[in-house]
Parts: sequence; C-alpha cells; structure tokens
Amino acid sequence: MNAKRGTMNSGDITIRRAVREADVVGVRELLEGTGFFYDAEVEIAEELIRETIQRGEASGYRFIFADGPEGLRGYSCYGPVPLTRSSWDLYWIAVRSDLRGKGIGRMLLRLSEETIRRSGGTRVYVDTSSREQYRPTRDFYAAMGYTVAADMEDFYAPGDGKIVFMKRL
Amino acid sequence: MNAKRGTMNSGDITIRRAVREADVVGVRELLEGTGFFYDAEVEIAEELIRETIQRGEASGYRFIFADGPEGLRGYSCYGPVPLTRSSWDLYWIAVRSDLRGKGIGRMLLRLSEETIRRSGGTRVYVDTSSREQYRPTRDFYAAMGYTVAADMEDFYAPGDGKIVFMKRL
Repeated sequence: MNAKRGTMNSGDITIRRAVREADVVGVRELLEGTGFFYDAEVEIAEELIRETIQRGEASGYRFIFADGPEGLRGYSCYGPVPLTRSSWDLYWIAVRSDLRGKGIGRMLLRLSEETIRRSGGTRVYVDTSSREQYRPTRDFYAAMGYTVAADMEDFYAPGDGKIVFMKRL
Repeated sequence: MNAKRGTMNSGDITIRRAVREADVVGVRELLEGTGFFYDAEVEIAEELIRETIQRGEASGYRFIFADGPEGLRGYSCYGPVPLTRSSWDLYWIAVRSDLRGKGIGRMLLRLSEETIRRSGGTRVYVDTSSREQYRPTRDFYAAMGYTVAADMEDFYAPGDGKIVFMKRL
C-alpha cells in the first residue's frame, strides 16, 4: 500500500464494526448501485443486517463498514461456519461502484481476515459465480491469495455455476 | 423393490409430511441413537423442526417422516437452495440404527427426490463428511446415483473434509 493510498484510507474512510439502523438502507443502495446483485440477494443482505441489529453477535454475522463523509463506501459481512472447527464464510463484500479500484475492497478483505484469524479462524471460504460478469471478482480473490476449493457447474442456474474460493490463514 | 419389502413398507411404515410437536423429541432420539451426529448437529436438526412448526413451508424446510407402530423410524429434511433457480439441498436423512439396511433410507431419499422434481427442482445436493465413519453414507449416495460435486479438504476440521454429492433429476 503506497503512502498516498494509506493517507486516503485513514483520512477519508472510517472503519466501523457496529451495525446501525441506517445500514439497512445504506447497504441496499450500495448493492443495487453495483449492478452485481439480484433483488433476492439484496433482500438477504438486508435481512442479515436486521438480524444483527436485533440479536448482536448471536446472529452469527459480523460486519466491517467503510464510511466516507458522504456515506457508506463499502462493507464486508462474514462469520463462522456452523458445525465446523475453524472455517469462516465471507458472505458479502461490496464497494460502491464509483469507488472501485481504490483499494477499499482489499482493505475490507484484509481487515476481515485479521479479525477471523484473531477469532481462531483458520480458513476463509467465499462463494462466487462462474458467470463472465464475475471475472473481476474471481481475479480479486485470486490476487488476494485465494484458491478454488470447489467448482459446481450450473449450481445457481443453467450456465451459472458456483465457485468456492478458499484461503488458509 | 421386491414384493416382501414393498409389503413391509406399506404395512408397517406410514409416510407423513406434516411436522408435529413430538418430532422435536423423536428426531433428537433418532439422531442421538445413530451415533453419527454431533450435539450441535442434533440441536440444528431440532431447530429446523421447531421453525417449520412455527412458520410452515415459509421456513424453507420440508420433511418426510417414516413412522412405525413404535414411533419414528427415519426422516428426511430438504428444501430449495436460496438464490438458485432449481437446486435443492438434502439437509438431513437418518434412519433408526436398528433398522438400517431395510430400505427405509432408500425409500425416504426416493420420495424426497420425487417431491423435489414435482416442485421444479433439477439438482439435489447433499453434504457429507470425508471421515471413515461416513463411508457407508457415501456409498449409499453413490448407489443412489449421486456423484461427487465438490471435495473440500479439512472443511469441518483438520482431517474432516466436506464432500458434496449431487444428482441431476
């Protein structure tokens, strides 16, 4: 990370882990703006936030929000995989469309991994789609040290497979 | 299916899809008796039943119970995978230990697949463990036409991988 980027991150972005009521709308707008998520996916993302507002960490979901002066710039959502010793799932990671390529996603992913490691996690899994639209997403995970742990053809729909990336921490 | 087995199934076993309050205890006893499930797994199985008693099919879980005159002999639990077009998950299938090898598991799996197919499902996924103890389980799925769709080393714990079986309907 160069000095310029380091300065931008610490100066313009505030990292926050506590979930707020306003995140329900903030995350919806952010996800809808990316053009990457189906309506049903956006609804589930909202639901995870509502559940965490109600139940706290007992929800099983943890969040990292990157706030700018103008509002939410990106966020990640992750949690331990039930019934596993130390595997964690990265459920969501998204950055506002007009802020892509500025290192916000890398920062969110690194912070998520650090928290997972400190919590005793040894493996991170993340599901993504095999569709062409998701090539930058797959390249991002590969660049961050993830490898393909599973490749399930036509899982989501015909022509839309599930690719599971994994990283050992 | 031979005539003798057909007679046994229809005579001694009643197939039931509606969930009852008594199934919470019935399923717990059945799962504990198999020696195949961890406490945390049994708790989750119970939770799915409670949620379905409260919310009906909106829970996302469907059940097939095989009742004998003396009580629950086996059951399956399955449902559509959220965010997929037509993929379904088989979450649980279990048969009372002293009744294994009598075709009850095969019957439950076939009935589950038939219901999934009638509901528009085209693929069934089922997760199992790579541990030696689960070899009969893996052989059972292979014999029923399932193939390995994913093999994720150390997923549950070191030395305990997740193997995902899949069948096209």
